[in-house]
Amino acid sequence: MQNFINQLSQVLEKKYILTQDEDKAPYLTDWRKRFTGKAFAVLLPSTSNEVAAIVKLCAQYQIALVPQGGHTGFCGGATPDNSGKQVILNLKRMNQIREIDIANQTITLEAGCILQSAQEKAAENGYLFPLSLGAEGSCMIGGNLATNAGGTNVLRYGNTRDLCLGLEVVTAKGEIWNGIKGLRKDNTGYDLRDLFIGSEGTLGIITAAVMKLYPLPVSQWTTLVACENIASTIALLTLFQKRANSLLTGFEMMTRESLNLNEKHFPQMANPLQGNPPYTVLIELSDHESEEHVRQLLETILEDAFEKSIISDAVIASNLTQANSFWHMREHITLAQAEEGANLKHDITIPLSSLDSFIRETDELMREKFPGVRIINFGHLGDGNLHYNIAPPLGTDPKTFNETNEKLIHELVYGQVERCKGSISAEHGVGQLKLDDLRGHKGEVAHDLMKMLKTALDPQNILNPHKVVSI
Amino acid sequence: MQNFINQLSQVLEKKYILTQDEDKAPYLTDWRKRFTGKAFAVLLPSTSNEVAAIVKLCAQYQIALVPQGGHTGFCGGATPDNSGKQVILNLKRMNQIREIDIANQTITLEAGCILQSAQEKAAENGYLFPLSLGAEGSCMIGGNLATNAGGTNVLRYGNTRDLCLGLEVVTAKGEIWNGIKGLRKDNTGYDLRDLFIGSEGTLGIITAAVMKLYPLPVSQWTTLVACENIASTIALLTLFQKRANSLLTGFEMMTRESLNLNEKHFPQMANPLQGNPPYTVLIELSDHESEEHVRQLLETILEDAFEKSIISDAVIASNLTQANSFWHMREHITLAQAEEGANLKHDITIPLSSLDSFIRETDELMREKFPGVRIINFGHLGDGNLHYNIAPPLGTDPKTFNETNEKLIHELVYGQVERCKGSISAEHGVGQLKLDDLRGHKGEVAHDLMKMLKTALDPQNILNPHKVVSI
Repeated sequence: MQNFINQLSQVLEKKYILTQDEDKAPYLTDWRKRFTGKAFAVLLPSTSNEVAAIVKLCAQYQIALVPQGGHTGFCGGATPDNSGKQVILNLKRMNQIREIDIANQTITLEAGCILQSAQEKAAENGYLFPLSLGAEGSCMIGGNLATNAGGTNVLRYGNTRDLCLGLEVVTAKGEIWNGIKGLRKDNTGYDLRDLFIGSEGTLGIITAAVMKLYPLPVSQWTTLVACENIASTIALLTLFQKRANSLLTGFEMMTRESLNLNEKHFPQMANPLQGNPPYTVLIELSDHESEEHVRQLLETILEDAFEKSIISDAVIASNLTQANSFWHMREHITLAQAEEGANLKHDITIPLSSLDSFIRETDELMREKFPGVRIINFGHLGDGNLHYNIAPPLGTDPKTFNETNEKLIHELVYGQVERCKGSISAEHGVGQLKLDDLRGHKGEVAHDLMKMLKTALDPQNILNPHKVVSI
Repeated sequence: MQNFINQLSQVLEKKYILTQDEDKAPYLTDWRKRFTGKAFAVLLPSTSNEVAAIVKLCAQYQIALVPQGGHTGFCGGATPDNSGKQVILNLKRMNQIREIDIANQTITLEAGCILQSAQEKAAENGYLFPLSLGAEGSCMIGGNLATNAGGTNVLRYGNTRDLCLGLEVVTAKGEIWNGIKGLRKDNTGYDLRDLFIGSEGTLGIITAAVMKLYPLPVSQWTTLVACENIASTIALLTLFQKRANSLLTGFEMMTRESLNLNEKHFPQMANPLQGNPPYTVLIELSDHESEEHVRQLLETILEDAFEKSIISDAVIASNLTQANSFWHMREHITLAQAEEGANLKHDITIPLSSLDSFIRETDELMREKFPGVRIINFGHLGDGNLHYNIAPPLGTDPKTFNETNEKLIHELVYGQVERCKGSISAEHGVGQLKLDDLRGHKGEVAHDLMKMLKTALDPQNILNPHKVVSI
């Protein structure tokens, strides 16, 4: 190990090789404080060449690396194991915006760029960088790519994967693949880009990326709408997709129980819809024509929805502050859950055609088998993505309840997901949290293919081992 | 071989194992008649199980397979070699539309479905299947996926890759990966789907796919616009992207020389714009609101473009027939080239920010080094995708000219592509045509990664060997 550290110091300045416990501590525990590990060093490179040199040394000494960005993931993908033998490669010093190419509508970002700073840079230039999610003030673009992050704009602009045109990646051999290109069409061989995206640092280390920009909308309108049942929320989605089409940029669903929890912990976040209906839907339209045009379109569609009895109430935000408060209401559910104490999270996707039956049946089974649990179900309905979270019954000790029931509750939910041909990880990835569930979910053939890929690209198993897939 | 055939006949009815020359002939030459090969059998399975059983036998006997759909590709990816030892696996009998799920906006297609029949099925149900390209009457969805086909709707809806949510694939071992899911978000491990898409049957055989549908627009308007130079065409694109945003569904560029060739061979296809300007741009807007809305928007943007002197003339199609004639004009360029005789094709992408300098410099170099050549430059400008084709000088023998100059002309164009960080294959793939160019274009690191993937997933090298990458 000392030889390794000595050689490292020829690559990195000493102050960027953290080996003291107090220096390493901030890198060892994830943002939700659910995962924690040990590392014998935390390395802070600032260039791809430094990353490549570090990986070469790790390959030589067979030392495993854990790539890390903002460490805001939910699945422990960027947290080391407990062996104390792994090194963390945190990319926060690689935070340059290398280029913004307005004519090509692209921005080239290093892995350590904070998502929000990329959004701001684009906006300064009159463009939109559409990736948007709760952790945007601290998560980094490298981590967004490594986990193929989703968020609230997927409905219109796709996942992180869909926003990326080119990558720079350090391979397990410590070579640099320069795939930094800003092309909308490129059919020259295998899709290496998408292979690295979403692989959570297990196949290579993403050091930079060319991302798409879009013209900024001139006007946005946000509304909260009341639906009596899940079938109506889906009818509403279909109506908006047919009539507003790509002007529809947000379609978020929140159940009554989710918003009750919000109101308990953040009374100022109370639902402005009368009586807190069974389902509250947040809808956002974004337009490139005019405020008048989009406002009129929104009102016409809502009228139609009223006439068809799809919705029973609606509040249109009268200004940006109110629009933001609607979004905050949505975002505060996660925080309210944290305030309430431990809960069991499920980040799932269900085909829209099965969503109604999934929710009805799963709710029923859950209440039958675990009386008193609170189903904190909300999410990006437009993508079929539910955060179907379970809070313990009031009056029980959350820790004890979860320890007793976690496995059974996961099994119930995931069983229903399989029945509906859904996904057990919509946007949060696999990391260490879902490693064991993955094999059964994907099936043997897919799981074998994944192992073949991991073995081929990282035969020494030094890149974030035992995350996503074990070999 | 006889053993192999005997065992095959336990998998497939005899009439679907073609071994006679006259039966095999239609499968041996591609649509453009540029590539031809030999095969000792053509196999016509109708289920994934049959495909899997065939691949297992091929693995056992180490016989190479060439998967084939409509055989309309431009790069020889579906044509066997000349050894006579390969078998062709044509998937045209796997042509079922397995499901259309309106609520989920997805359609599940078998690999042998003709693209046009998928479009029609979607339209019957009030939905759009956006993939659209010249060969749509005969190309098949399996081939579209295998080559990640582009076409005229990429600007708004993306490449074939972007339209696919799930796949069924037969692996090199003859196992079936069931990845048939219709989910907009799914972060459960490595992106196998995108790895198979665009791999031209070298990593696995795509047998079915779940594809996205979109609500049909209620109105479309098509216009032809005159620009004096390439910088103006790009300014026009930016203007339309900012103002019409995702209503912009087509943006095709045709040079004067391209349309001159059209007029020569198809006089009824003459450019309706006065004097056939240096650059003619075909613009299509599609709307989900109303005919009036989109028509007004189109006129407003064109007025703005006139005022800014970006365009000098415009003709808006007054009815569907005229709109179709504008598109036919665009599509007939390829046919006019075929009528004119052999020509040298380049299917390239250039970042929009470099397009002006690319065209000016390459045109100049081309005319300087190869006096008299006709530059038939046209393409999907909105994607930066040019079909930068070179026709021999008038009065020279095309065959002799091409034999003498093909290599030099390719070198000139591809050199310019590299300088601009473009792609040497935008939408047609690699196949056998560009196999030798790929290594230099991708660089050693990317090329090595591709070889590792091929070796890992097809260690016996039985899936379409010596296409895309050689191991």
